[in-house]
Amino acid sequence: MNLSERAAGIQASPIRKLKPYDDAARLKGIKVYHLNIGQPDIETPDEMLQVYSNYQDKILAYGPAQGLDEYRTNLVKYYQKHGIMLDRESIIITTAGSEAIIFAMLVTCNPGDEIIIPEPFYTNYNGFATIAGIKIVPLTTKAEEGFKLPDDEAIEALITPRTKAIMICNPGNPTGAVYPREDLLRLSEIVQQNNLYVISDEVYREFVYDGLTHTSIMEIPGLEKNAIMVDSISKRYSACGARIGCFITQNKEIIAATLKFAQARLCPPTIDQLAANAAIDIEEEYFDKILKEYDKRRNLVFRELQKVEGIICKKPQGAFYIIAKLPIADAEKFIIWMLSEFSVDNETVMFAPAEGFYATPGLGKDEIRLAYVLNEAALLKAMNIFRKGLEEYRKNQ
Amino acid sequence: MNLSERAAGIQASPIRKLKPYDDAARLKGIKVYHLNIGQPDIETPDEMLQVYSNYQDKILAYGPAQGLDEYRTNLVKYYQKHGIMLDRESIIITTAGSEAIIFAMLVTCNPGDEIIIPEPFYTNYNGFATIAGIKIVPLTTKAEEGFKLPDDEAIEALITPRTKAIMICNPGNPTGAVYPREDLLRLSEIVQQNNLYVISDEVYREFVYDGLTHTSIMEIPGLEKNAIMVDSISKRYSACGARIGCFITQNKEIIAATLKFAQARLCPPTIDQLAANAAIDIEEEYFDKILKEYDKRRNLVFRELQKVEGIICKKPQGAFYIIAKLPIADAEKFIIWMLSEFSVDNETVMFAPAEGFYATPGLGKDEIRLAYVLNEAALLKAMNIFRKGLEEYRKNQ
Repeated sequence: MNLSERAAGIQASPIRKLKPYDDAARLKGIKVYHLNIGQPDIETPDEMLQVYSNYQDKILAYGPAQGLDEYRTNLVKYYQKHGIMLDRESIIITTAGSEAIIFAMLVTCNPGDEIIIPEPFYTNYNGFATIAGIKIVPLTTKAEEGFKLPDDEAIEALITPRTKAIMICNPGNPTGAVYPREDLLRLSEIVQQNNLYVISDEVYREFVYDGLTHTSIMEIPGLEKNAIMVDSISKRYSACGARIGCFITQNKEIIAATLKFAQARLCPPTIDQLAANAAIDIEEEYFDKILKEYDKRRNLVFRELQKVEGIICKKPQGAFYIIAKLPIADAEKFIIWMLSEFSVDNETVMFAPAEGFYATPGLGKDEIRLAYVLNEAALLKAMNIFRKGLEEYRKNQ
Repeated sequence: MNLSERAAGIQASPIRKLKPYDDAARLKGIKVYHLNIGQPDIETPDEMLQVYSNYQDKILAYGPAQGLDEYRTNLVKYYQKHGIMLDRESIIITTAGSEAIIFAMLVTCNPGDEIIIPEPFYTNYNGFATIAGIKIVPLTTKAEEGFKLPDDEAIEALITPRTKAIMICNPGNPTGAVYPREDLLRLSEIVQQNNLYVISDEVYREFVYDGLTHTSIMEIPGLEKNAIMVDSISKRYSACGARIGCFITQNKEIIAATLKFAQARLCPPTIDQLAANAAIDIEEEYFDKILKEYDKRRNLVFRELQKVEGIICKKPQGAFYIIAKLPIADAEKFIIWMLSEFSVDNETVMFAPAEGFYATPGLGKDEIRLAYVLNEAALLKAMNIFRKGLEEYRKNQ
């Protein structure tokens, strides 16, 4: 009796595999600053938490497969505020962004079909691709260029008869890159000319800096049949544990088929949807405040990174991640060394090795991803430990 | 640009497709008794609801991919009470039973592989099979025989080189059948001899009547490598909207691979897990009371069904469903007619057509599934309307 090939082949999380070193450090009494995962330290809005406190129904019942009508209706208003015009029937509520991505892959691709994705990309796309039996074709972007979208020729060179979609994450995890409107217009031309879907993961929509405005794939005219957007409240409202996301498209055939996948699993969590619904009326000031906070952190981390000789890193404009190319051969070894053998005043710091975010073998081996999800004081300490550690590590190489 | 073949091919829910007739009836001001779906009218235990009210954390954070440690530890105790000996590492918490079933299919089967399932079966297994790209091979069971598990020869005749697992639902939805220990021992022999997995959906564990004791697949010796159990709190605690289930196996290779699928989607809902955890200490009296209530309903529905001439229906011993074979050709037509053209004092009743629970074409066309999820007074009214409707309908045929 064997495991299925997909079970044998599914990628182990490149972030979670370092957990044992993290645990071992803590057992030795060392405090670890976790810049390795995207769990924000921002408080979940009271408006959401109160929904749990105030829940009055006596039966915690199934909701509709497409999500609660009330929530879907309010989401239309939320997207309007962001310049995205939709009707309620274009929205299916999902169990977090994860499920929305799986649905998008299942509904657009047959097993063996290909989706082009700029790399480095969110590593769990690999797991979803394994579930859906599809092949991710990486479109390499570079630290030196701020991970900008490559030119048309580079994208078109990857299109084969099996290509069904181009998938982007905008603003990008793990890159922090924000695609300008021109890039989305370029993509729009390519997908229309080649009869492809474009799947846009926009869960970091609110997290753009430097006065930029985020452009959604749903704002690009002419993509009504091609565009699928996936979204999630996890980062937006620091509500990762609620597991509420959504799948959006104006393609009626796609929405009808996706609803059938949604019906099979009955419904997303009911009270968590009510909490997500309560978040929609949160004032813009909430985001202004959070954005200012993240912006300060971004500036701090970037400034501290710049102090390292030989580092390659453009300042990212979105999300809350930075990828830095280090002047060492193997970033994972360095991260393990930091956890196992280095500390300053009994404190050390943990990053994610960036190699796991690339599909092309060998790429990203010298890169780390930092999530700036701690306050400034903690970040400053962490960055100092990082610099000292890197210096020490390079001496021993 | 086409839908994927699986999106074009996924089964539309045979239950939900009658929703428009239901809506139309209500718009005409007709009250519809819903015996068509398994949404219990039992109240969710206060112990669970209080967890939502009392949630104090300021950040609704991710939990571990395998579920909260505290909850998994307590589940070990829950299963012990049911004679099922496990350690915590055998348990992965899932987003409802649905996700556990998808994981079980993904981890045991390659695309195109086969799972043998007694029919009629829970119709959403079809959707999960589409997601996993596997083929369900139906093992026909019969209303006349109380949907008992067929003999060894009938089962073995369906095994091919592509068969990877036999999947059962025990107690059964939609049949209400409870497999005695002897049947599980027979199955155990077959799966061991043929090197197969056995996947057991036991979400109705508590719902067995007539003084029976439920036997879990996990109690059968020698199946440590073969057995996978899927479970859910939806029906147990009338908490369908919490979306908490679990995937259990003592096969370490399977649990390790399944964890990778679980890591891709990060975690199940956090507060809902805390609520599920609080339910574990609920006294046995809670179930005694509920079971008595369901037992009364079962007796009532069965008694009322027996009054119909030509009906074929054995008294089921588990879950809260009954399948009845009616003396008509097309049960779906009859159900639509009941919703569209028949009422008594402005009231009518809705069932699920059983055809959708069969994979063999043509089977179940004359059968309905009743979920006895309403109180006795409502059930009695519903059953009277049903009998009058059936009489009237048969006159017009």
